[in-house]
Amino acid sequence: MNPGNPYELGLDKNPANYVALSPLSFLARSAQVYPHATALIYGERRQDWDTTYRRCRRLAGALAARGIGHGDTVAVMLPNVPAMFEAHFGVPMCGAVLNTLNTRLDAEAIAFMLDHGQARVLIADREFAPVLHKALSMLGERRPLVVQVDDDEAPPAAPLGELEYEQLLAEGSEDYAWQLPRDEWDAISLNYTSGTTGNPKGVVTHHRGAYLNAANNMIAWTLPHHPVYLWTLPMFHCNGWCFPWTMALVAGTSVCLRRVDPAVIFPLIREHRVSHMCGAPIVYGMLINAPAELRAGIGHKVAGLIAGAAPPLAVIEGCEAAGIELTHVYGLTEVYGPAAVCAKQPQWEGLPLDERARLNGRQGVPYPLQEAIAVLDPKTGQPVPADGQTIGEVCFRGNVVMKGYLKNPGATAEAFEGGWFHTGDLAVVHGDGYVKITDRSKDIIISGGENISSIEVEDALHRHPAVLAAAVVAQPDPKWGEVPCAFVELKPGAQVGEAELIEFCRGMLARFKVPKKIVFGEVPKTSTGKIQKFVLRDRARSSSAIE
Amino acid sequence: MNPGNPYELGLDKNPANYVALSPLSFLARSAQVYPHATALIYGERRQDWDTTYRRCRRLAGALAARGIGHGDTVAVMLPNVPAMFEAHFGVPMCGAVLNTLNTRLDAEAIAFMLDHGQARVLIADREFAPVLHKALSMLGERRPLVVQVDDDEAPPAAPLGELEYEQLLAEGSEDYAWQLPRDEWDAISLNYTSGTTGNPKGVVTHHRGAYLNAANNMIAWTLPHHPVYLWTLPMFHCNGWCFPWTMALVAGTSVCLRRVDPAVIFPLIREHRVSHMCGAPIVYGMLINAPAELRAGIGHKVAGLIAGAAPPLAVIEGCEAAGIELTHVYGLTEVYGPAAVCAKQPQWEGLPLDERARLNGRQGVPYPLQEAIAVLDPKTGQPVPADGQTIGEVCFRGNVVMKGYLKNPGATAEAFEGGWFHTGDLAVVHGDGYVKITDRSKDIIISGGENISSIEVEDALHRHPAVLAAAVVAQPDPKWGEVPCAFVELKPGAQVGEAELIEFCRGMLARFKVPKKIVFGEVPKTSTGKIQKFVLRDRARSSSAIE
Repeated sequence: MNPGNPYELGLDKNPANYVALSPLSFLARSAQVYPHATALIYGERRQDWDTTYRRCRRLAGALAARGIGHGDTVAVMLPNVPAMFEAHFGVPMCGAVLNTLNTRLDAEAIAFMLDHGQARVLIADREFAPVLHKALSMLGERRPLVVQVDDDEAPPAAPLGELEYEQLLAEGSEDYAWQLPRDEWDAISLNYTSGTTGNPKGVVTHHRGAYLNAANNMIAWTLPHHPVYLWTLPMFHCNGWCFPWTMALVAGTSVCLRRVDPAVIFPLIREHRVSHMCGAPIVYGMLINAPAELRAGIGHKVAGLIAGAAPPLAVIEGCEAAGIELTHVYGLTEVYGPAAVCAKQPQWEGLPLDERARLNGRQGVPYPLQEAIAVLDPKTGQPVPADGQTIGEVCFRGNVVMKGYLKNPGATAEAFEGGWFHTGDLAVVHGDGYVKITDRSKDIIISGGENISSIEVEDALHRHPAVLAAAVVAQPDPKWGEVPCAFVELKPGAQVGEAELIEFCRGMLARFKVPKKIVFGEVPKTSTGKIQKFVLRDRARSSSAIE
Repeated sequence: MNPGNPYELGLDKNPANYVALSPLSFLARSAQVYPHATALIYGERRQDWDTTYRRCRRLAGALAARGIGHGDTVAVMLPNVPAMFEAHFGVPMCGAVLNTLNTRLDAEAIAFMLDHGQARVLIADREFAPVLHKALSMLGERRPLVVQVDDDEAPPAAPLGELEYEQLLAEGSEDYAWQLPRDEWDAISLNYTSGTTGNPKGVVTHHRGAYLNAANNMIAWTLPHHPVYLWTLPMFHCNGWCFPWTMALVAGTSVCLRRVDPAVIFPLIREHRVSHMCGAPIVYGMLINAPAELRAGIGHKVAGLIAGAAPPLAVIEGCEAAGIELTHVYGLTEVYGPAAVCAKQPQWEGLPLDERARLNGRQGVPYPLQEAIAVLDPKTGQPVPADGQTIGEVCFRGNVVMKGYLKNPGATAEAFEGGWFHTGDLAVVHGDGYVKITDRSKDIIISGGENISSIEVEDALHRHPAVLAAAVVAQPDPKWGEVPCAFVELKPGAQVGEAELIEFCRGMLARFKVPKKIVFGEVPKTSTGKIQKFVLRDRARSSSAIE
């Protein structure tokens, strides 16, 4: 503020020209402009934007009447059903923070999150009654109010809570005078990272970022008004990459479903003419490998965002054949889901498929409303050269970056060191400025001072016809510091020896990158199919396991 | 800030997660992601985003080297040429405020604006040398540094300033370390309203609003990536409705032109496959009435935003036939150009043309990222009922509303009274929530306590085949307070008497709305074709003029 500057004299913020940025405004607008357009489809249910807005106000009003407000946590453990969508609006409309729980977690993890997040209410589907009964019993007196969601499509299960979701809504008024947040920096959601080791961290995001990333999804993907969006991506995963809020911005139709199953998905795509969907490569892989008769009668194109891992060639090829137009995005919970996009260049269109797959397999460039992505040298903090060779850490900076980790100042400070959010992913930058991830930082192997990407070595092993799964970790070595050690699971009936496989790798990798040791056997995975490298690292460290 | 709230503990803003919203970021991103995509076309010139970014940094660096910085004003008087586009980035990149001058103004108005806005630099096209020499001579010692833009396509004119634009750019470095604004609330531009009476008011807008409205244009219009945008709308008019910044967001191609002329426009549409354009109804009227041979060979559709007045039926019809798909938007300088859109409802598609014209002729609903539009009762400040009848004042609230009027606290306070920005336009709200403007507040006629829309009476007069132009104002009346008085200009050779025209109006208007008096003759207009109602009001008041 410079008192001599006429542009700062008597030109302050006031209620007419300054409003907190919040995705809640999108719901109010869609209900006003398109009241009778369909917001939600679930089984036989159809719900328009006007009704959705009324129900969300009821939810907010009911929560407020029960004393929930600014800074309180409301946890939900729900599949992609309408109540989950409504919670993304109704919970923040009373000032509270939405904590979406991964429905695949065990009781210990759930109990930790409910306790750490200080959840005052838990809204949950009865399918999860067994795990929740156990988790709640661990909490004792810190048990939140439990609201069960009854769903005819859910498998039979024991009752769960003090009241049913519709009963809760009936306690609230559809005229509830909800407010925008006092400050756009106020928390809107709490999402715990899965974390393969230690306690999960609670990522706190804010209204401003949710607003901007909801618009980002629209701008990056050039979403039309009224898309028909299929909920193949869990809403518990980074708030469905902010897509509940994006759907409110473009007055889209959300087609809900309890589980990702081609036998359910294809009829939904056909019946509702689904135009857009999101998911990990495994979702698209499932669709393109489904029996052809499931896909019969679908003539229109579907646009798909893909993230979670670079889309393999087979997936890109299969989707093209199946009429699914993929766009590759990249992000993580700390940046509200997608925060980078492999923006397609017009000149790529004429290239051969494998070249396009290579180009589209990169993590790319910042999302339109994200300020910057950079690959920084961990020692100097400076950007690595755009040579496609030099490895650094992927970092983000901008308004679509979390507030920090809840009650974890140490982890927060570490994540934001040097004015960038550090992802822990390692990458190179190609000549065209596109970022390409090579590894997680804790997975990198440093041998004789040289970085070895475990992904590169695993890719080489995967090319051997006998290999089903491969994971490469660092093994301590007195001479080189670390050397690559591979854990390999063979296809049923297939056979290959250690020497033969090492020789095979030599044909494809620089000598220092070739695994010094190969251990055959089943590779340990999490319930979601992620390889548990921390288990393998322990095994590699204890010589007894591998000698 | 509640110290007991865990969501506010150690979760503050920092350089990693908070960046000022500014449309300057869009330029940096397009230059990074699409460096060789075409940003500007002008005559034979083609300029890509990388070059544009470098030139804007040169401009910013050169201005900074001459001592221009935070809070200083740089005025420009330019047609829609590349330098005008570059000024929208280069000027704010050094912290300064861009003041675009209407190229049709006279020397007195220009001198007032340069003086009131304290312009330190003026960048101008030589076409305007005559008026500028006069304006600058009025300023005396307060004369700014004058930079002339030489353009081969400009008409010959005398030299104008101390140096040429390219010389100025050569003084700056393309590596100039520009900064985002210190605060997103910092001023980005100063635009003087034309104002039919009194001194113009200087509308100050900020980076945050420019960022959001640039995205608004994209979202409301579902602009694709890389549109080809024809500059039929003057960039001096509300910064071209923020479209220079929108083009940077979507990496579009701007096709520049010095003047709106069908003989220039159609070849540009054909050659560059123009996909998008903006303009007032008069621009579209000019295009659809142009000789058919000018339009030959254009097979593709063009999307057009139309604003400034409700699009008449003939324009909507003519554009449909000509392959121009219109979207009606509404706004004013104080809300960065368009801030409302007549959002098309899917169910309108099957309706007859005249019904669609009526529906699309309304001002509509808030822009996606504008918070609210409302029609408020001037007495109570409460929204009028959505009955299509009750007249109130159109008001806006949200982040796309100006900071206020420069050095004019009285006008600023008046404009923001009651927490809304008051447009001065009068309107009704239809049953579907869409706003429909009926008049400017100062043009309304209050007769016997009833409001009469001057537009409604003028519409009735326009239907008479002899009428070329009609303007209706209030005439003081001892019995009714005010009565409508019409000023009518007839078509060449046409004839109609006062009694006959009054009788004609009776067939279409309620009795109290029928003009009591009709004055024939030329209707006074401003240089931009706006009818000068204040002149007519004076005439109506002085009985000598009309008796």
